[in-house]
Amino acid sequence: MDQQTRTCSRDMFRIIAMLLVAATAALVFQLIYPPRVEAASDQHPNFVIIFADDLGYGDLGCQGHPTIRTPNLDRLAAEGQRWTSFYSAASVCTPSRAALLTGRLPIRSGMCAEQPRVLGSGISKGGIPADEILLSEALKEKGYATGCIGKWHLGHLPQYMPTNNGFDFFYGLDASNDHNLRHDYPKDQFPELRRTSALWNNKLYRNLEVVEQPADQRTLTRHYTEEAVQFIEQHKNKPFLLYMPHTFPHTPLFASEKFQGTSQRGLYGDVVEELDWSVGTVIDALKQQNVARNTLVVFTSDNGPWLIRGEKGGSAGLLREGKGSTWEGGMRVPGIFWWPGRIEPATVRDIGCTMDLFNTCLALAGVERPDDRIIDGIDLAPTLFEGKPSPRDHMFFYRGTEIHAVRKGAYKVHFLTRPAFGRGSDQPIPHDPPLLYDLDEDPSERLNFADKYPNVIADVQALVKSHRANLVAPPSELTK
Amino acid sequence: MDQQTRTCSRDMFRIIAMLLVAATAALVFQLIYPPRVEAASDQHPNFVIIFADDLGYGDLGCQGHPTIRTPNLDRLAAEGQRWTSFYSAASVCTPSRAALLTGRLPIRSGMCAEQPRVLGSGISKGGIPADEILLSEALKEKGYATGCIGKWHLGHLPQYMPTNNGFDFFYGLDASNDHNLRHDYPKDQFPELRRTSALWNNKLYRNLEVVEQPADQRTLTRHYTEEAVQFIEQHKNKPFLLYMPHTFPHTPLFASEKFQGTSQRGLYGDVVEELDWSVGTVIDALKQQNVARNTLVVFTSDNGPWLIRGEKGGSAGLLREGKGSTWEGGMRVPGIFWWPGRIEPATVRDIGCTMDLFNTCLALAGVERPDDRIIDGIDLAPTLFEGKPSPRDHMFFYRGTEIHAVRKGAYKVHFLTRPAFGRGSDQPIPHDPPLLYDLDEDPSERLNFADKYPNVIADVQALVKSHRANLVAPPSELTK
Repeated sequence: MDQQTRTCSRDMFRIIAMLLVAATAALVFQLIYPPRVEAASDQHPNFVIIFADDLGYGDLGCQGHPTIRTPNLDRLAAEGQRWTSFYSAASVCTPSRAALLTGRLPIRSGMCAEQPRVLGSGISKGGIPADEILLSEALKEKGYATGCIGKWHLGHLPQYMPTNNGFDFFYGLDASNDHNLRHDYPKDQFPELRRTSALWNNKLYRNLEVVEQPADQRTLTRHYTEEAVQFIEQHKNKPFLLYMPHTFPHTPLFASEKFQGTSQRGLYGDVVEELDWSVGTVIDALKQQNVARNTLVVFTSDNGPWLIRGEKGGSAGLLREGKGSTWEGGMRVPGIFWWPGRIEPATVRDIGCTMDLFNTCLALAGVERPDDRIIDGIDLAPTLFEGKPSPRDHMFFYRGTEIHAVRKGAYKVHFLTRPAFGRGSDQPIPHDPPLLYDLDEDPSERLNFADKYPNVIADVQALVKSHRANLVAPPSELTK
Repeated sequence: MDQQTRTCSRDMFRIIAMLLVAATAALVFQLIYPPRVEAASDQHPNFVIIFADDLGYGDLGCQGHPTIRTPNLDRLAAEGQRWTSFYSAASVCTPSRAALLTGRLPIRSGMCAEQPRVLGSGISKGGIPADEILLSEALKEKGYATGCIGKWHLGHLPQYMPTNNGFDFFYGLDASNDHNLRHDYPKDQFPELRRTSALWNNKLYRNLEVVEQPADQRTLTRHYTEEAVQFIEQHKNKPFLLYMPHTFPHTPLFASEKFQGTSQRGLYGDVVEELDWSVGTVIDALKQQNVARNTLVVFTSDNGPWLIRGEKGGSAGLLREGKGSTWEGGMRVPGIFWWPGRIEPATVRDIGCTMDLFNTCLALAGVERPDDRIIDGIDLAPTLFEGKPSPRDHMFFYRGTEIHAVRKGAYKVHFLTRPAFGRGSDQPIPHDPPLLYDLDEDPSERLNFADKYPNVIADVQALVKSHRANLVAPPSELTK
């Protein structure tokens, strides 16, 4: 027996001995701590929808950002499905949120306009119409506990607020964090008001009660997260919907003390890395309460990055333009789906949209889709759970009340284009013939191939025609 | 005992029984197949350097590309270190390759010029000077087996070829695949010549012998890979350097039949996905021959994407410009380091450079660095193996024989700028004061903060001055 063989045999017996010890330890452990059983699989699943604000397609580690650290989101993406052609239904806050919660294009609910582009906190008279059926309402009726923690932005008057629209619970701001800017302060107070975020006199609500004014924006992500953990603890024994539309990284940017000055990417990075921490904390809570395996978690963003904010705005990565534009950078957003035991790890390159969450969640909850109205969402179950191609093959790109572009399969046809907010003229540029890009080959929309695919343009024009034929557009809620 | 407890106990005993069965099976397996012992750790490690051609920063799944599938590279990146600020030492082929193999800026070896930018196959009289010490030469002297499989591009005359420059073995092309374009054919043969790649009359070499002319470019990646697998098999018992400078995705693009038409990203995607397959196959061979745990594998690219090639060119992701430019898109490239058991999974955001491979490999091989010349590379061991900050804190961005920009820490200072090849004027635009970008906060180089950091500019100017003071620039080999 030479030296090497002797070493091998010794190692071998050591391994076997360790295995037997491990088996015995497992036996003892099992006897002392019988396993807690996770929520039975025939219970309707929980839904956690985490919706970042103005986060760009390129702002996560797993989407290629060189300096922003997002280990929790990267892990969700690696364990779940990362969709690389996932879209918000609008390139700005209010319509994007209305679309996600109704499963309908904002034009159908009146939740969009050319101007103003969003609802104004404390100003607007409009809001989400009472006859719209929200995901929260449909699930609540089925017995779900429903919580909205974060930024609402579907109307600040009581009848429009979350607790009057299907949510049992609300904690957050009624609109964006840059509303309610103060002008009535002595000028020498500016630095302190800016630092503490008191320059914006925002109301922090718990249900319909204002619990902090001005809301301390430095603590918002942390408080949202604590409230989310508590919500999960309280509702672990019944199915729940937790909708978390975060306030950030919409400007003005604020991070809690723990994250300030910690990211190479500067304050924007601090803020995104705190969001990543928040996601990790919510996932930990789901695991701690033994409901992770019965919960679909979705992470996405309401629109592309606000480019004119400079280093305070995000990045659309390789995509063209950003927030406000119907170029890809305005509406293609990170899309991560996670559900341990149900969703297999994959990168999905097919089309998906935030409106599809409405249909997908309703189907999983065993709720019938409303049949008295057009729903634009599509149930993504075949792709999520069976690895089949996405049932969505097209996507309308509205800006305000106008269709600017349509994607059909790999091809995107632009009838009108505008750059991101603040980057050049706000007047739409008409294109006749329309522009055509192959997004699979050319995701950056650099090469117009309109000449090459006249049939595609004709198909898309027919699609638009039939869409318009069925379209009933109520008066805008934003201009009220 | 209720139903749930009974189910638990049954599950528990089933688990214990399975563990005992597993332990017994492991015992039997160990007796029948005692483990093969991998190459002892005191043997000098092997090096596999895979060098793509014109692959952009944004062209891999793990770097955020939406449609190119690179599962093998993504896995290497996840298991190893992915460097997000890794640079080639030039923005074009010949100087970039010279720098990697000598650990020196191309200006020191005469392997760069304003025009011509690279060596021409069959035309140029110059090549890598005899007195340059190449990584291959230094390692061969230490007893390493050395193979170069792919595109050389450091001179086509015999004295400049790989087997006369420290490589025991060469299989590949002497230069880029777009050289040697034929003009002497009947016009009706064009489609067939284009399809089969015979339009380019390139020589495929085995050592100094031409084994195929015109080289069938459709089979290059496959043949390179087969040769690489064979090289690993043949040299598994001694330390080896395998340098694989791939021909693709430099244009013209060709993929083997198996990959043609398979990628959503079109032909460019087919080609990159075949490269990814090649990397996976090489890794498999290392594992198969039980040398993976004694091998440092590096994957990177010689420069940024060739943007004017349209859909046949790659993407720099969120970075500005591409091949030929000293903006980030021209020189920041994917950088993946993999060594199971030695390199812990991490994303590294510090600066690294292809020239550093020279120092890193020499140190690992126990070879003294040449002390009769300036070496620009730095040993990256502290970062690779101990997770410490990168010892590299700055980077010179040469185009041709001129410093265009310098990165120091997070800051990049541009004295001269030019867009990528073919995108606007080729004349350098001087900047006085220079432009300054914070690459950590603004990797896309959008926000000039020259006013804000005059000290940084002064520091960088001092750095350039001391660099120039020690610079000996021999006549260019490219203009010979």
